[in-house]
Amino acid sequence: MTIKINLNADMAEGFGAYDIGDDNGILKIIGSANIACGFHAGDPLTMRRVVENARREGVTIGVHPGFNDLWGFGRRRIDMRPEDLEYMVAYQIGALQAMASYSSVKVTHLKPHGALNNMAAENKEYAMAIGRAIKAVDPSIIYLALSGSEMEKAGRSLGLRVALEGFCDRQYEDDGNLTSRKIPGSVFKDPAVATKQVVDMVVHNFITTRSGKQIPCKVHSLCVHGDEPTAVALARQVREGLEKAGVKMVTLPEMPID
Amino acid sequence: MTIKINLNADMAEGFGAYDIGDDNGILKIIGSANIACGFHAGDPLTMRRVVENARREGVTIGVHPGFNDLWGFGRRRIDMRPEDLEYMVAYQIGALQAMASYSSVKVTHLKPHGALNNMAAENKEYAMAIGRAIKAVDPSIIYLALSGSEMEKAGRSLGLRVALEGFCDRQYEDDGNLTSRKIPGSVFKDPAVATKQVVDMVVHNFITTRSGKQIPCKVHSLCVHGDEPTAVALARQVREGLEKAGVKMVTLPEMPID
Amino acid sequence: MTIKINLNADMAEGFGAYDIGDDNGILKIIGSANIACGFHAGDPLTMRRVVENARREGVTIGVHPGFNDLWGFGRRRIDMRPEDLEYMVAYQIGALQAMASYSSVKVTHLKPHGALNNMAAENKEYAMAIGRAIKAVDPSIIYLALSGSEMEKAGRSLGLRVALEGFCDRQYEDDGNLTSRKIPGSVFKDPAVATKQVVDMVVHNFITTRSGKQIPCKVHSLCVHGDEPTAVALARQVREGLEKAGVKMVTLPEMPID
Amino acid sequence: MTIKINLNADMAEGFGAYDIGDDNGILKIIGSANIACGFHAGDPLTMRRVVENARREGVTIGVHPGFNDLWGFGRRRIDMRPEDLEYMVAYQIGALQAMASYSSVKVTHLKPHGALNNMAAENKEYAMAIGRAIKAVDPSIIYLALSGSEMEKAGRSLGLRVALEGFCDRQYEDDGNLTSRKIPGSVFKDPAVATKQVVDMVVHNFITTRSGKQIPCKVHSLCVHGDEPTAVALARQVREGLEKAGVKMVTLPEMPID
Repeated sequence: MTIKINLNADMAEGFGAYDIGDDNGILKIIGSANIACGFHAGDPLTMRRVVENARREGVTIGVHPGFNDLWGFGRRRIDMRPEDLEYMVAYQIGALQAMASYSSVKVTHLKPHGALNNMAAENKEYAMAIGRAIKAVDPSIIYLALSGSEMEKAGRSLGLRVALEGFCDRQYEDDGNLTSRKIPGSVFKDPAVATKQVVDMVVHNFITTRSGKQIPCKVHSLCVHGDEPTAVALARQVREGLEKAGVKMVTLPEMPID
Repeated sequence: MTIKINLNADMAEGFGAYDIGDDNGILKIIGSANIACGFHAGDPLTMRRVVENARREGVTIGVHPGFNDLWGFGRRRIDMRPEDLEYMVAYQIGALQAMASYSSVKVTHLKPHGALNNMAAENKEYAMAIGRAIKAVDPSIIYLALSGSEMEKAGRSLGLRVALEGFCDRQYEDDGNLTSRKIPGSVFKDPAVATKQVVDMVVHNFITTRSGKQIPCKVHSLCVHGDEPTAVALARQVREGLEKAGVKMVTLPEMPID
Repeated sequence: MTIKINLNADMAEGFGAYDIGDDNGILKIIGSANIACGFHAGDPLTMRRVVENARREGVTIGVHPGFNDLWGFGRRRIDMRPEDLEYMVAYQIGALQAMASYSSVKVTHLKPHGALNNMAAENKEYAMAIGRAIKAVDPSIIYLALSGSEMEKAGRSLGLRVALEGFCDRQYEDDGNLTSRKIPGSVFKDPAVATKQVVDMVVHNFITTRSGKQIPCKVHSLCVHGDEPTAVALARQVREGLEKAGVKMVTLPEMPID
Repeated sequence: MTIKINLNADMAEGFGAYDIGDDNGILKIIGSANIACGFHAGDPLTMRRVVENARREGVTIGVHPGFNDLWGFGRRRIDMRPEDLEYMVAYQIGALQAMASYSSVKVTHLKPHGALNNMAAENKEYAMAIGRAIKAVDPSIIYLALSGSEMEKAGRSLGLRVALEGFCDRQYEDDGNLTSRKIPGSVFKDPAVATKQVVDMVVHNFITTRSGKQIPCKVHSLCVHGDEPTAVALARQVREGLEKAGVKMVTLPEMPID
């Protein structure tokens, strides 16, 4: 049986006069795009353009909701009441669905941005609020969640479809968490190292941790980045490495999620 | 045959710590609510709450898109490119649809807010941009347009359903336009005067203009206000006057629109 | 020797179409006004008007900087880098100084708003960032800080003038902290109770805590509220109670701060 | 007597994760920098950094106020009441003054941004509102105005110091206005053409218009751009051309303004 994997990346994070990330370059590599919705980045015109470009490339789209914080690019933690968070996320889902109707495509997944993603990974209330927004607006939307996170648990407890996310370019600890960025070497710059890790994850279902231990691992989607030329190059090599190992690149809705 | 009319009002224009307008009072009077979508006013939590309150009262909901201008409450004209405007409106439609799914209701009309409404009434490019947004996101949404405006024309040319709007409390000129607010007496404060005008409009299909002339008139929806206690009282008396004249109050989707 | 006290209140928190708080009522009661600067609330027009009204009433003005979060009214904690926070506060100080120049008055104090005040009370980095902003823009500005807070310490370590703030309507614990709002009775509604507490604080320099213990207390300014009619009434009675006890109401710059 | 000229450019228009324009490159060419103040672009951190970099390069700083419109980059005309505009501009002046105090420099000029500049050039009410803001906050600030514009008139009628601005890379009409961008050739790409025009303007006090006519011209400052590598190159060549013609580059406060 062919092994499949999905690659995802954040998109549409420029707006107005501002350009950021090589959206067109990365769309040729990934299977699913996380579209910023105007809160932490992006604007309606950019959303609409990137959705159409994604459709042309056969890339499926997902909501990439963030905090309402352009100056902070959604990277600052904001302490919201769960109901405020829930409706803020629902609002962004609807906004992207409207843009998707221009291209006659569906919004098929959701992945929170930046600080919201970090908080929802750890905090049950945040994870549940996001899950409830999905459930209310379109329960067929896949909740793209860090493996083992509160998001995974919340998605399952709400009966949502959950896809598990792993990282190409980050080292892991023995407990399955990411190694802190403060520790030297925790972010892989060498495409060969990244490629080895993802092939292990996807084909052999384990990760070699910082201590050298092998831990089991299950992922449906790997996060790649398009914010720097080197990031796009690394993403391309990771994809090629996976293909060479016989892995088939698919969109998130095409991934077998159990 | 029973004569029918719809009353509409702007809603959900508070947010966070800010309260504005007697939404609950006015929901008992009107048939259709124009919901602010967080650009000129409102926020997701307020949208969600007012949508649910509208559902409970049997009031249908519409998008009330405005310029992205909280400080100006959407009352300042902004010179946008048509494509920016179109996607900004589409975005707000989608955002409200997401909130509507919580209450299992549909968004059934759209009425622009403040300066956007004024500009779209006069400017074909604006009127068309808004119409294209409706057509792309949900072509069954009724375009609520000032009678004789560019919005009416745009809606018809795009094949959309168009409902014509009249005013309870504003004097008209012989050409069918509203008398400028700068002219004394142009805004009716006396409920009896307002009631006489609306009964003439709805039952007898004419308006008596400032010069005393009677001009023909066709309206599907009358705009009332909820921003002051006196406005709510006037709205209530207008409704009672119409009911006394045998007119039936309905939601916008229940109005016969040809 | 006459005992003096300052009363302060938050002001200018409406903007555009939004009104909040009885600014004119409270200006007749207090000695110093904390002016919102357009980030968590307020706008330039409101700032300018309230500064002029304060001048007319002989009330001194201070910056009331908040997080950039209109939807949350500055009540949501935001995790900022100290340098971002510092310049954001400096920016708001400058903005208010510009408005003050219209009325030929000086900005004489600073008190953070809402979540920023709470965070700066506990967090040394936040407290220092705010203090550095004061020091850079105008080191003569008084840092209005909760007694015993990190703000007090930061202000002193930077060589700033620090005024200590107490509460009229909140119960205290034995360690000098405020009793949590979640505990019944922790917010005083009865003007007689509030008045007794402030007279004890100002005249006798102690507070009777929730447990009944008397702890020593030093305050230069008492915070009153203007957001509800009952709050304004309570503020008025607190002031009258203090005056009856022989305490003189002064502005913050008139308070002896050592 | 040595002929002097000032070069100015817009700066500090990135923020957070967004970078725009080669601020450091252009700071080595110009004498005075127009600093965005967080409304159309920029944020406090960026303002502070660019102010300090300007100081290091001996470049004086000015306020570059814009409309409150990040999505539109201040390029969309907004119809504001003069008092709202005035205080919005005053607010931005104060914000920049606060940042300037970190570097112990003064804000010495003001030039409106984008649509605000265009509107103030044509509209007396806007031009006067901006002038009144300068007068109230710091009447020593130089009003940098298009030659012949309403801004020039407003500045003079208010008794402000006015510096006249010309363009390196734009063709002029016989009436002294800029040739519309819609007309081919109206924006000079060829550094030699731009250099000839500025030398004619600065040294010989005339402009050769599109029709070939020579009209008299008086400018104190020339606007250059830093938003593209070619723009920075053109600015550098214009500067070299002027220096070769014996013109001395100075800051705006060093320019003789009568």
